Amino acid sequence: MENTFVLFNNQITERENVSIDMEDRGYNFGDGIYEVVYIYGGKPFSMDEHFRRFEESARKLEMKMPCPIEELKEKTAELIQANNIHNGIVYIQMTRGASARAHLYEKEAACLITGFARKMDPPAEAQEKGVKTYLTPDIRWLRCDIKSLNLLGNTMAKRIAADHACGEALQHRDGICTEGSSSNLFIVKNNEVHTHPANNLILNGITRQHILQIAGEQGITVKEAPFSTEELQAADEVFISSTTMEIAPVISVEGDVQATYPIGSVTRALQKKLKDKIKQNRVHQ
Amino acid sequence: MENTFVLFNNQITERENVSIDMEDRGYNFGDGIYEVVYIYGGKPFSMDEHFRRFEESARKLEMKMPCPIEELKEKTAELIQANNIHNGIVYIQMTRGASARAHLYEKEAACLITGFARKMDPPAEAQEKGVKTYLTPDIRWLRCDIKSLNLLGNTMAKRIAADHACGEALQHRDGICTEGSSSNLFIVKNNEVHTHPANNLILNGITRQHILQIAGEQGITVKEAPFSTEELQAADEVFISSTTMEIAPVISVEGDVQATYPIGSVTRALQKKLKDKIKQNRVHQ
Repeated sequence: MENTFVLFNNQITERENVSIDMEDRGYNFGDGIYEVVYIYGGKPFSMDEHFRRFEESARKLEMKMPCPIEELKEKTAELIQANNIHNGIVYIQMTRGASARAHLYEKEAACLITGFARKMDPPAEAQEKGVKTYLTPDIRWLRCDIKSLNLLGNTMAKRIAADHACGEALQHRDGICTEGSSSNLFIVKNNEVHTHPANNLILNGITRQHILQIAGEQGITVKEAPFSTEELQAADEVFISSTTMEIAPVISVEGDVQATYPIGSVTRALQKKLKDKIKQNRVHQ
Repeated sequence: MENTFVLFNNQITERENVSIDMEDRGYNFGDGIYEVVYIYGGKPFSMDEHFRRFEESARKLEMKMPCPIEELKEKTAELIQANNIHNGIVYIQMTRGASARAHLYEKEAACLITGFARKMDPPAEAQEKGVKTYLTPDIRWLRCDIKSLNLLGNTMAKRIAADHACGEALQHRDGICTEGSSSNLFIVKNNEVHTHPANNLILNGITRQHILQIAGEQGITVKEAPFSTEELQAADEVFISSTTMEIAPVISVEGDVQATYPIGSVTRALQKKLKDKIKQNRVHQ
């Protein structure tokens, strides 16, 4: 890994100075949380929303923040600057820190925050031409609402998709579509948008929340209600969203159902309005 | 943490020399596996069975062993000796190593093995007097057969149990009892032993396998079949098993069902025979 500036234990430091303990609970139990924020033109987008969710994930896992969230935001801004990121991401993770390995965690444990920033351009080709997807059973736990480090189910789904030359995996639990392996999932039918409700079975993506708001402003009906794999198959348009991808059209699904989709007008309208919102953020911040 | 000898990247080294990368996939995704082997009188018990399962977990996650398993067993034996362990445990973990963070894993990734050994006496009081348990919904993923580092569900269950002054959590999925947060679960009814089948919903414990074998030798019927929370409540005896606990009687359950149990003759008979088997191992190895 290139040597860059990273965030470690509330300090900006060179990466070569960082050492994670082999009994950090993040390393033995995946006992931790994270956020990824996109940086456009040097400015983080929706940082407040991401850090609100970070605090929410911490609360759900009874993790105690080692510093006020405002201080963490400042350090994150420093991290972005130190690495001179124009377009890219900043990744912030918090684990319950090092202690003699035992399942039982202490609520007062000293949590450890680490973070890095990296240059990355928005995936223009996926946004323009769309992505192929592969539908596979959702084998993850029942607290997908927590943005935790327990991501094996997600990584296995992503691998299955790649093995079938698809860029993203879609997941369904007993025939109900949940979300992608690292994205939220939307279908369009008769100009209405459908997406899984933000309950314990999906992560309530920040980009997902922007889409719901934009759709409302555009007079597009959104139903946050479960939909089946058959409804996925019969959809007029399908798209996925994430922080790093914004909105990407889905052009096909393989695996547990098969279909191809045009890149439709609802997807394109939402894509454009999200890009507008991102641009506004750059101007006004 | 005390400075001891640990296993790191196929070398026995002092703990202070070990540094885990902040982008080790074990740290960002819980992308890894582990085993815990008990050491009695300086000798590991069932090491072959544990390392067979280690290889099986690796295969299920498409992880490539960085060295032959026989070499890892030798290093593990060295680790035990270097730390002069009489009674205790040795913990061996393998992650998919460090790479720029991305969900998609490479099948050929260089995996990293770490391990430590620690003194620990068998939990005589739990074995003798039994443990209180707390029954809670099983929120874990659908590949509990893999001994992976995605253990948040287990740690949360353990915390809930501790919050109710119980030593172990029992879990049920939609009313079917699966296992403890770090143990397998058995009930006894009319002198028959029942335990969840070794499918994707539980970890097939090495101690569990010893119990099935011992029960067979003793003419005790064991049914590997799902049983309900009502059957748990109505059981004559209940016990749990694990590598570090051997067999411990369950004296009560709280939470989603409530009951108290005597420490019965079937539990005691199996406990005694397991201890005999462990003693034989010390003599014959």
